[in-house]
Amino acid sequence: MYRLHYYPGNANLAPHMLMEEMGVEYELVYVDRNAGAHKQAAYLTLNPSGRIPVLEDGGMVIAETAAICLHLADRHIETKMAPDISTPERAKFYQWLMFLTNTVQTEFLVYYYSDRYSTDPEHAAAIKDAAEARLIGYFRIIEEQLAKKGPYMMGPAISLLDFYLLMLCRWGRFFTQKPGDMPNLGQHIGNMVLRPSVIRAFEQEGLEPPFA
Amino acid sequence: MYRLHYYPGNANLAPHMLMEEMGVEYELVYVDRNAGAHKQAAYLTLNPSGRIPVLEDGGMVIAETAAICLHLADRHIETKMAPDISTPERAKFYQWLMFLTNTVQTEFLVYYYSDRYSTDPEHAAAIKDAAEARLIGYFRIIEEQLAKKGPYMMGPAISLLDFYLLMLCRWGRFFTQKPGDMPNLGQHIGNMVLRPSVIRAFEQEGLEPPFA
Repeated sequence: MYRLHYYPGNANLAPHMLMEEMGVEYELVYVDRNAGAHKQAAYLTLNPSGRIPVLEDGGMVIAETAAICLHLADRHIETKMAPDISTPERAKFYQWLMFLTNTVQTEFLVYYYSDRYSTDPEHAAAIKDAAEARLIGYFRIIEEQLAKKGPYMMGPAISLLDFYLLMLCRWGRFFTQKPGDMPNLGQHIGNMVLRPSVIRAFEQEGLEPPFA
Repeated sequence: MYRLHYYPGNANLAPHMLMEEMGVEYELVYVDRNAGAHKQAAYLTLNPSGRIPVLEDGGMVIAETAAICLHLADRHIETKMAPDISTPERAKFYQWLMFLTNTVQTEFLVYYYSDRYSTDPEHAAAIKDAAEARLIGYFRIIEEQLAKKGPYMMGPAISLLDFYLLMLCRWGRFFTQKPGDMPNLGQHIGNMVLRPSVIRAFEQEGLEPPFA
């Protein structure tokens, strides 16, 4: 059985929704972030970077949200959450997954923890503003992809990218220009939050509207 | 035949070394960065994010360095540049690849383009200093991995991660604490730069010492 170490609304949300969608058995393990549990020895043994989430799969421990999602898709290939290996679709899927993790997700670190991005904490507000502007640009790139090739990130079929994207849209729900206000992203979010897997994951993490 | 759009020393270096190591046929296409070619229509049609590199594989166009490397490894599975699908090693490999791309590589954007990370360009120097400090911490995590599980990122066998890592170490060659000054990373770099594939790729891009 899988064990997903989580904190409500953190990056665990993507693999959490994914496991619900796949119908695999798993257990949620609460990480007491407010007590700094993610920076203490027990957690750091699982994940030296101290980031949430971590997935235990038997004796194996996997960190990095995108790696966890890819691993789950590979392990349960019949659920078709990733295109088959060595297809052109798989290559495009890799491209979007990397964009979501190394560009959009990482930029949210700058947005939410902007005080860490300069040796002078007084720069935080200006750093946060610049991050929000970049993020809005990244969501526009995704909006264009959905407009051209939607309704899902990979076209007609849902994949793990769509759960990942929903999580990221949620993180931007307080922007001046919210991802959900863009027409295709708004439609995507509207479809996703109606899925029973998504509803269950949000409920289990105690997440309230607005969802994105 | 593959076509890799490149600028010397940019993120193309990882897939370039990898293709040399694999012995596949490819062509290099120079992107005139100094003339802003990566922000002009012809290039943006290939890669809307305007980032370098892009790989053309027949009629297929793939952006994102990590996606390009994964795609190449999947297409040439016999070269064993990535562990087999659905093995525990593959999951760990995904974890490190994500760490290299979403944490180390993306942080180098902050380091090299620090003026873009605040609405006030005067914050650039303090942002750059903070990025360098974080990067040194990330290289320490990799140093520990090599110390415990080396000599390569995945242990006894070389994989695409090692070429990726060499590129990132090179980007940090002007740090106050260079990755190459850490004992295991220094050894790793020393081994990698002796490989004929690496020597050829560096020569073709016109890169001079210090290599890392």
